[in-house]
Amino acid sequence: MKILAIDTSNRPLSVALLEDQTLLAENTTTVSKNHSVTLMPAIEEIFKQSQLKPEEIDRVVVAQGPGSYTGLRIGVTTAKTLAYSLNKELVGVSSLAVLAKGVQADAKTLLVPVFDARRDNVFAGGYMWDDGQLKNVLPDQHISFSKLCKQIMGKEVCFIGADVAKFANQLKELMAGQDYRIAPAESAVPRAFNLGTLGLLKEAENVNDFVPRYLRITQAESQWLKRNPQEGKKHGPYVKKY
Amino acid sequence: MKILAIDTSNRPLSVALLEDQTLLAENTTTVSKNHSVTLMPAIEEIFKQSQLKPEEIDRVVVAQGPGSYTGLRIGVTTAKTLAYSLNKELVGVSSLAVLAKGVQADAKTLLVPVFDARRDNVFAGGYMWDDGQLKNVLPDQHISFSKLCKQIMGKEVCFIGADVAKFANQLKELMAGQDYRIAPAESAVPRAFNLGTLGLLKEAENVNDFVPRYLRITQAESQWLKRNPQEGKKHGPYVKKY
Repeated sequence: MKILAIDTSNRPLSVALLEDQTLLAENTTTVSKNHSVTLMPAIEEIFKQSQLKPEEIDRVVVAQGPGSYTGLRIGVTTAKTLAYSLNKELVGVSSLAVLAKGVQADAKTLLVPVFDARRDNVFAGGYMWDDGQLKNVLPDQHISFSKLCKQIMGKEVCFIGADVAKFANQLKELMAGQDYRIAPAESAVPRAFNLGTLGLLKEAENVNDFVPRYLRITQAESQWLKRNPQEGKKHGPYVKKY
Repeated sequence: MKILAIDTSNRPLSVALLEDQTLLAENTTTVSKNHSVTLMPAIEEIFKQSQLKPEEIDRVVVAQGPGSYTGLRIGVTTAKTLAYSLNKELVGVSSLAVLAKGVQADAKTLLVPVFDARRDNVFAGGYMWDDGQLKNVLPDQHISFSKLCKQIMGKEVCFIGADVAKFANQLKELMAGQDYRIAPAESAVPRAFNLGTLGLLKEAENVNDFVPRYLRITQAESQWLKRNPQEGKKHGPYVKKY
């Protein structure tokens, strides 16, 4: 199966073409200031390098969230548009799982990929290796960093992600005496190759219904909901309204 | 320090730009049929993505060998030419170390990256993690696969590389009862990001004297040496003659 994998869920941009478990080409950059401008040229480049035509792929795999609102919209919209227009399968994978996939660990280690969500909150999930497969054991969530630390106490924890450094002081305090480590800097870069291999095994989604997994509402929404509690009950998922 | 890293030592081609330990952009492809044609455009592309000019880098780091003769000549020649013409530092790193750098392991694990060298021979070295640093504990060598297995017996071994699969049957026999594993497929792809971070700490080389580390002579040379044993004694390193 030939796969195009797209991750623009945060500042880094990573795209890859795979044939089953084999990487054909990958491009990863951490300095893109405007994914909406840089994503399509990066995709074009890896198609050229792989000597593949877009219609030759079988599936588009996209990092579905959590992450930056704008980044997720660009990635998911591009993936949906390509899957729809080329009539290919579409699969979404957790952006946090992509980071966890890049860290090899024994079966006792709880991998905790973390994205900063501001105001002392994070997006984080818990993943473990089990017989060569990465399993989600703590669902991706939007949570305060201190609550997260409470949830994972007593485990052998490996934090992953460029944003972990921002919580270094809190980490020392909250996880004092606990068995934890921080994965090396290399693992903080999401790799679309890892996204692609994760997406290889999942079932295809309905392209029309597919939306990003933001895991939180925007500040504008939360303020509106406070002012309009009754409307909020009828409101439903915000992004589907568009 | 800004680094351009180049690895064309085998079939995959990987180039990256780094600022110290941070990846700016990386492009990796495993399907390049002609590194001499694809290397410079790949380098141009990551400069464009990073919004850097070639003269802004401080150092070129190249995978110096072992590997394919042609691949090494292309990578080393390109790296030397760029370092010379831009007046930048040049550093060589073992192509095997680049693979080892991509595998996280505990301090007891002997990482053994392997490239097929044909006729049941391999290029292989032994690496271990020691306090966050990758150390070479068994020098890179050109050796028969069976001799390699004898050298590493009794250790907790992790083999790395796409070519390990070719030795799967021999491995079961030669390492029967031994504690060994094979690193996941993702680790078999050399990453110029890992090459760059390894090259960050090394001392700069003399650009003029810099040559690939083939670790074996060509078949043509070995046949010539058999026919001309006296000449061979005066011969010296082949590649420096050119």
